[in-house]
Amino acid sequence: MTEGTQLIRGLEGVVAAETRLCDLDGKNGRLAYCGYDIEDLARRATFEEVAYLLWHGELPDRSRLGQFTSELIAVRPIPAELAQAFALMPEHADPMRALQAAVATLGMHDPDATDNSRAANRRKAARLTSQIATAVCAHHRIRHGQKPVEPSRDLPHAANFLYMLTGQKPTDVTARAFDASLILYAEHELNASTFTTRVIAATLSDMHSAVAGGVGAMKGTLHGGAGEAVMRTLLEIGRLDHTTGDPRAAIVKGMAEEACRQSGQGLWYDLAVKLHARVHAAKKLIPNVDFYSAPLFYSIGIPLDLFTPVICVARVAGWTANLLEQYDDNRLIRPRADYKGAGRQSFAPVEKR
Amino acid sequence: MTEGTQLIRGLEGVVAAETRLCDLDGKNGRLAYCGYDIEDLARRATFEEVAYLLWHGELPDRSRLGQFTSELIAVRPIPAELAQAFALMPEHADPMRALQAAVATLGMHDPDATDNSRAANRRKAARLTSQIATAVCAHHRIRHGQKPVEPSRDLPHAANFLYMLTGQKPTDVTARAFDASLILYAEHELNASTFTTRVIAATLSDMHSAVAGGVGAMKGTLHGGAGEAVMRTLLEIGRLDHTTGDPRAAIVKGMAEEACRQSGQGLWYDLAVKLHARVHAAKKLIPNVDFYSAPLFYSIGIPLDLFTPVICVARVAGWTANLLEQYDDNRLIRPRADYKGAGRQSFAPVEKR
Repeated sequence: MTEGTQLIRGLEGVVAAETRLCDLDGKNGRLAYCGYDIEDLARRATFEEVAYLLWHGELPDRSRLGQFTSELIAVRPIPAELAQAFALMPEHADPMRALQAAVATLGMHDPDATDNSRAANRRKAARLTSQIATAVCAHHRIRHGQKPVEPSRDLPHAANFLYMLTGQKPTDVTARAFDASLILYAEHELNASTFTTRVIAATLSDMHSAVAGGVGAMKGTLHGGAGEAVMRTLLEIGRLDHTTGDPRAAIVKGMAEEACRQSGQGLWYDLAVKLHARVHAAKKLIPNVDFYSAPLFYSIGIPLDLFTPVICVARVAGWTANLLEQYDDNRLIRPRADYKGAGRQSFAPVEKR
Repeated sequence: MTEGTQLIRGLEGVVAAETRLCDLDGKNGRLAYCGYDIEDLARRATFEEVAYLLWHGELPDRSRLGQFTSELIAVRPIPAELAQAFALMPEHADPMRALQAAVATLGMHDPDATDNSRAANRRKAARLTSQIATAVCAHHRIRHGQKPVEPSRDLPHAANFLYMLTGQKPTDVTARAFDASLILYAEHELNASTFTTRVIAATLSDMHSAVAGGVGAMKGTLHGGAGEAVMRTLLEIGRLDHTTGDPRAAIVKGMAEEACRQSGQGLWYDLAVKLHARVHAAKKLIPNVDFYSAPLFYSIGIPLDLFTPVICVARVAGWTANLLEQYDDNRLIRPRADYKGAGRQSFAPVEKR
């Protein structure tokens, strides 16, 4: 580096992209996807409608939604070879590592593997979204000695995930709460995993390779890793300047209360409220979406170690929407580092050291 | 975005990290690792010494080098399950996709999978470096119906790679040329793949998850993809402002000439020189390291589709060195996007659209 410019730690405040997807206004506590308020979407839309919105920039009418739903359902099955690969993985394998390997493997089997046109990428976005859900459930069941459940040919995306996980069709209330969670997690501007997918894609690498990188980033406890990392996440909130709070948190708080009470697990919700109050009193921190998602996910039967994979099941819609945008107006993303190391050294062969 | 800051396309000129690893001074055509000029290292050091330098900040003395070499050799074998997973992959699978899945899989089997201490990460850097070489060769042979060659227990890293690839010990001249290539490719500051690994690791995700992301970025034709992408790479050079040239290009040019002539394939070198002259005359562009690596790799028997995986075999030393640095002083990397999409929309249910 000879430019003499200053290090910007964490790239804080640096604008690295323009987007038509997520309007994230932390100061005013507002979050919208393509102009639609997150509250309207979480309460009134389905995950399928939101995925369509993110990929096409507008909500589908009835006929388009019907076609789109059929497209997503048709590409739910994963290749038999992927299930065989899951069976080879060690039982203790972190589900996020399994998902990262799975996404790379899905790329090998994708019929558009070598086609990076916009139309092919849009098809890949649908396959990735459907197949990541199937893969997470298949790996979970296989490593617990259970047979994978074939994807449903009629259930909506959220209900189908719970069905593939447990083999049981969920109640309407549970399916609706999970659907809303997926919507809340579907997109969040240049969060670390989405930024990762864009940096990878900007080399003109393909969508699967980029999404596998996003999975790697989501695994980190400063990002997707909720649950045990709630405290870290809270600390992050302050840093990310959500001073008036994450609007998703209030929505998910109400859903968590309902789901916990209905399943006789009000304890988890009450505990979260108490922790929230204590943390707020001590540190003036306001929780983000992950905080109340933990008791919500738990009460609807998502195993602890699938909390982060479930966020990927949702976020893949946003990752792929960002990738479509990135490819449409691409440029290599290549910042610089400031060299602070040793000055010029003269080389001596090993026998003279 | 409410800050009103300007988009910085490609993060050009933005300083995203401080580093003690690579001093990349394009204007003066200088490149050094930890203070050592790249020419000295390429001509006089081994890849093992360079990996040690990158991870420890200094060159090893004879006793440390002996210990270090033994450590790298001991961790060369890959788990049997990974070879079985390769056998499940479609024959046409891109070797870079296979490598990405392999790195995620190696993470599951790593004895330090859940230990992210500095000592564990240093051990993981060694395992990743040795095992990526083994994995690239094993996948290549398995998909061509050949049995993988067990890693040598005495050959140096570069010679062992060529041995695992072909089953034949390379000549000293070939091994030396390949060793020097690996050194040239081992590290290059915040290139797109290294930046990817840092963005992933900054979420406190683990080293294998981060390196798998780096592999995804290296696959892109604006980054690792040499060969068919030589022209794109040349265009990139201008953009990256290597106005006095990439010092690695001159080194590799000499090596390419020697290797091509010795193997009776001078044609490829001569062709590259002619293309170089023509491009320079037309566009005033100067080649970077990838330009003469293509004929060099080809003449020493690296299959075309392993050019990019071979760059990963080298760059993993730099990726892991960058990750050690990143973890030592971590902060989430989270830039912003400027929202340019639709204004506020009011939600109508699908039956009213």
